[in-house]
Amino acid sequence: MGLFRQNIESMSGYQPGEQPPRGGRLVKLNTNENPYPPAPGVRRVLQNFDASLLRLYPDPVFKDLSRVISGLCGRGADEIIVGNGSDDLLTMALRSFTSAGRKLSVFTPSYSLYSVLAKIQDCECDEISLDEKNGFSLPDDAETRIADASLLIICRPNAPTGNSFPLDRIASLIDACNGVAMVDEAYADFSDDNCLELCRSRKNAILMRTLSKSYSLAGLRLGYALAAPEIISGMMKVKDSYNVGMLSQVLAIEALSDRSHFEANLSKILKTRAFLSDSLSARGFRVFPSQSNFVLVEPPSPWKAEKLYQDLKRNGVLVRHFSVQNVDKFLRITVGTDNEIKFLLEQIDLIVPGPEGLSAI
Amino acid sequence: MGLFRQNIESMSGYQPGEQPPRGGRLVKLNTNENPYPPAPGVRRVLQNFDASLLRLYPDPVFKDLSRVISGLCGRGADEIIVGNGSDDLLTMALRSFTSAGRKLSVFTPSYSLYSVLAKIQDCECDEISLDEKNGFSLPDDAETRIADASLLIICRPNAPTGNSFPLDRIASLIDACNGVAMVDEAYADFSDDNCLELCRSRKNAILMRTLSKSYSLAGLRLGYALAAPEIISGMMKVKDSYNVGMLSQVLAIEALSDRSHFEANLSKILKTRAFLSDSLSARGFRVFPSQSNFVLVEPPSPWKAEKLYQDLKRNGVLVRHFSVQNVDKFLRITVGTDNEIKFLLEQIDLIVPGPEGLSAI
Repeated sequence: MGLFRQNIESMSGYQPGEQPPRGGRLVKLNTNENPYPPAPGVRRVLQNFDASLLRLYPDPVFKDLSRVISGLCGRGADEIIVGNGSDDLLTMALRSFTSAGRKLSVFTPSYSLYSVLAKIQDCECDEISLDEKNGFSLPDDAETRIADASLLIICRPNAPTGNSFPLDRIASLIDACNGVAMVDEAYADFSDDNCLELCRSRKNAILMRTLSKSYSLAGLRLGYALAAPEIISGMMKVKDSYNVGMLSQVLAIEALSDRSHFEANLSKILKTRAFLSDSLSARGFRVFPSQSNFVLVEPPSPWKAEKLYQDLKRNGVLVRHFSVQNVDKFLRITVGTDNEIKFLLEQIDLIVPGPEGLSAI
Repeated sequence: MGLFRQNIESMSGYQPGEQPPRGGRLVKLNTNENPYPPAPGVRRVLQNFDASLLRLYPDPVFKDLSRVISGLCGRGADEIIVGNGSDDLLTMALRSFTSAGRKLSVFTPSYSLYSVLAKIQDCECDEISLDEKNGFSLPDDAETRIADASLLIICRPNAPTGNSFPLDRIASLIDACNGVAMVDEAYADFSDDNCLELCRSRKNAILMRTLSKSYSLAGLRLGYALAAPEIISGMMKVKDSYNVGMLSQVLAIEALSDRSHFEANLSKILKTRAFLSDSLSARGFRVFPSQSNFVLVEPPSPWKAEKLYQDLKRNGVLVRHFSVQNVDKFLRITVGTDNEIKFLLEQIDLIVPGPEGLSAI
């Protein structure tokens, strides 16, 4: 018997997107970070924070932060749990609801961490293919496939495809699931609608949000989940007692409270998203309609996605290419600032695809 | 089948020590926090931190922080993993090494989170009683009992007892263990010696440290572990990708780098620990020799620990009482400032135990 469990020994870990060295000059459009800084109050709170408080443990049940989330989402404090990023909440969910004999169901392509967490938990992971021909929509038999899942995770809007699934299909999936259904709304703030209301009325639904994208706080690690009190109290037993640091709690309160910064930030990104989508369409790219802060595109023939990714990187722009089947012909491009997107487009115009997709540069 | 796994449904969560409301006037000696602020550079870093960087994900492999830890501990970067507090590292270890059929062995009384994590992981937890009569020392048959553990966790110095086990017994336990042996050194900075060297030469050993106690940074959530590269690379697959936030990384670097603040802080606490121990001994308390930043004591008859805990709380001092068998006759008192300890002693002198341990107040 090895030191590690067999499932851990044999698995590969999750591969986060490249993090180029700070101070480098790459335009970073590869990990769906927000190109704008967080609310100005975040800086103020940092500057005025009494560092001596850090000697104390943080509030294990994040009361003050829950109150702010409660005000925004209309759920009670006993319906809220906070995580060290959404990933922490996903981990809690896997450990709470899945095990050998209790399967996870997810759609694919989606956030690849879901299936990695299933391997760590050593539970079955049923990966249900989305319909690429129809814009990565949900397959007709999805409700049947997920009925016996102990945990269903739906990423909406989905990554890396960028599309949202119809609200009535989400409701139907949650109702069809005999286990817990988790809607990962990491990108929902960039979407025309969300699942807040439909999750509220469903006892087996968990809705999850993050401050990493729409609040420009990926560096902070802060996600939260909303669910019925019975689900929250069970997950509270599973979470690390002091999983959310003191600074994360006070800075999250500040960021969530500044609604005008949030709205202004969103509207800039939505405008640039339209510009990016239109500009790439005009250049012959297949552009999937996006409800998130990134766009999935397929370069026009004879370009190859991987080669274009490499050429762009050489020219100073980092986008995301996934070397996995069915997605390897696409690039996922984060919506940056207008200037960043203009620079990206300039580089694309400079890179001439050769007859076999070889760049002339 | 319930929504939760059966083991989660039936378990109780870990109970963190009471966190009285901020701004209250309780002298807080119940959760082993450091009474002094962290290194002054922590405040400076917070004040000068460029908040716009928080829009980016933190370094998932904490390169800069690892370099600093490497310099302090003499282990390579591939022998270091960082956690969102030690609890995060404990969780990783349980998920890496234990499962049904792969047992955890721990000593008792010790940090009660260990057995809670075993329940979450649904693995057997063998709790081996320490010998109270001999100052909570390791039992003679410990090596035999732990031989078939997939994970052994030894807290040294131990909490809540405060004592350290002999280094040669730790070496002997690690060598006797066919699985991985983790030495939780949360309190080692307050001890006369540590397991750094003996763990370095053992392939199955993990040494774990935290910044919560000796660096006054419980609010930050920062722990690290040192082990052979094969163990670290496996645990890296299990950890959440971005488990350590950006602020935690830069502030930990600052705190670890200020050796003179660290040394001055330690020497104050060790001096006050001696004063606290002597003063309680003089009052007839049974005082266990402490190698940590807290002291385990048994009040003299007819005092009862729980009643004294309540009386002290009423008088403005919060200490820790554990309502579990074999430990419920003790109080665990964190070493505070001299003034806090003097206040504690004044209150003890005011509280007169009645004939059945009833206080006169």
